Amino acid sequence: MTKAVAIQGVQGSFHHIVAQHYFGDAVPLLECLSFDDAINSLLNKETDAVVMALENSIAGSIIPNYALIDTHDLHIVGEQYLDIQHHLMALSGQSIEDIQEVYSHPMALLQCKAFFKKHPHIKLIEDKDTAEVAQRIQKQQLKGVAAIASQLAAHLFELEIVAKSIQTIHHNETRFVIVKRDHEGSITEGYNKASIKFELEHKRGSLAAILNVMSDCQLNLTKIQSLPKIETPWKYAFFVDVTFDTCSYFKKARTLLQIMAEDFKVLGQYKHTK
Amino acid sequence: MTKAVAIQGVQGSFHHIVAQHYFGDAVPLLECLSFDDAINSLLNKETDAVVMALENSIAGSIIPNYALIDTHDLHIVGEQYLDIQHHLMALSGQSIEDIQEVYSHPMALLQCKAFFKKHPHIKLIEDKDTAEVAQRIQKQQLKGVAAIASQLAAHLFELEIVAKSIQTIHHNETRFVIVKRDHEGSITEGYNKASIKFELEHKRGSLAAILNVMSDCQLNLTKIQSLPKIETPWKYAFFVDVTFDTCSYFKKARTLLQIMAEDFKVLGQYKHTK
Repeated sequence: MTKAVAIQGVQGSFHHIVAQHYFGDAVPLLECLSFDDAINSLLNKETDAVVMALENSIAGSIIPNYALIDTHDLHIVGEQYLDIQHHLMALSGQSIEDIQEVYSHPMALLQCKAFFKKHPHIKLIEDKDTAEVAQRIQKQQLKGVAAIASQLAAHLFELEIVAKSIQTIHHNETRFVIVKRDHEGSITEGYNKASIKFELEHKRGSLAAILNVMSDCQLNLTKIQSLPKIETPWKYAFFVDVTFDTCSYFKKARTLLQIMAEDFKVLGQYKHTK
Repeated sequence: MTKAVAIQGVQGSFHHIVAQHYFGDAVPLLECLSFDDAINSLLNKETDAVVMALENSIAGSIIPNYALIDTHDLHIVGEQYLDIQHHLMALSGQSIEDIQEVYSHPMALLQCKAFFKKHPHIKLIEDKDTAEVAQRIQKQQLKGVAAIASQLAAHLFELEIVAKSIQTIHHNETRFVIVKRDHEGSITEGYNKASIKFELEHKRGSLAAILNVMSDCQLNLTKIQSLPKIETPWKYAFFVDVTFDTCSYFKKARTLLQIMAEDFKVLGQYKHTK
């Protein structure tokens, strides 16, 4: 039984939608204004889980969030994909010409930049959260101000959608993960996906050798990302996701990889959702 | 001989610093307020080269910039690493307490977020460029406003540095590339690094097979990044950088990879700088 779940953003945020999908409507939420705050609430045992965006089909991996999981030795216990649709919303009775300012998260502003190029009279201002702006517009009855947020946010804060799906790339899929302090509560059997991290010296063929083992053990790669270790030139960290038919395949690979790679670490074992 | 070089941002930007390193002080610059604009100037033959940030030791790859190179079949002809140091700067005679607003590029704001957490009285506002804000502060004599920019910008626009190196992670290295319309002007011999792109079906061991060939041909991987093709489920694109002792090794690998991988493409061949 999960006590409380930390989300980045307020109610109506995309993280809230994922929390609803994964834990149901009834779960108590802790609204956090940054990923750091969300992770801190987990470390302080104020919450038992965090919902966190990890990669995006447009911008790629959110490297700082990988670092948060890795640094604090946290565990991924589940994942959820969400098709992100950004809507422009404001107090009712206003058209796009009435909107002077849009406050939103930098990522949302970036994803909608082509739309705003066509409306140069609108000033874009960076804010901490997409849905929190929607809430503020309703609370303070702000005219001429719009938010970029989800359908759920428009519904919760009773705003009117001025323009639908304003993101530049129509299909914008984000992968969220559910993060916990430890493996507790995560499944020990029946999982078919794992996220791992390891390091390699800059030696010819070292990554090929690792991938050969994974392939021999019947693991399918669904993601690979190298990251140079800035403090240690010529050393690389790799974040890899694999899927498999049965977890015995993964267990075998894990034993071999622990010997072959430095700092091998399982970030999480869970059921994949796509 | 290069006519004009497009940079993202105005004079004093980090892209300007890279252009100086690579082309010398005398090269004419075209200041662009977005990567899209810079690439358009190259396509229109208004410029002969673009300086473009491609990856960052903190945030990882700038995927949209990879997409710009790939979509327009452009070529990487060189690279340059730069240690990014962000300074807070304003009109002289002001202390941090006098600063009410900071305008900067979203990436710069993100990289300095720990600093601004300690100064919550400062309002952060997203802007298009780091150095352009510095220029504006001087031009319009804006008091209470600060920019986050380079030492070069402080020097050019005669601003005082209020706080030095305010980025959260002290060592913040960014890799820039020089992009041209075609291989023209790029070296045909003596290069020792290449950037390639290919696609693979989601088939067990397909990436391992490719990496084995690279290793057999004496290529060293310095970067690998998978990117799911959103419109084609279970298909992946890979962006890979390799280094090698002589370009004959690469030529051999290229012939093999053209047969083995789908949509194999050389994004550039150049001399590596680190």
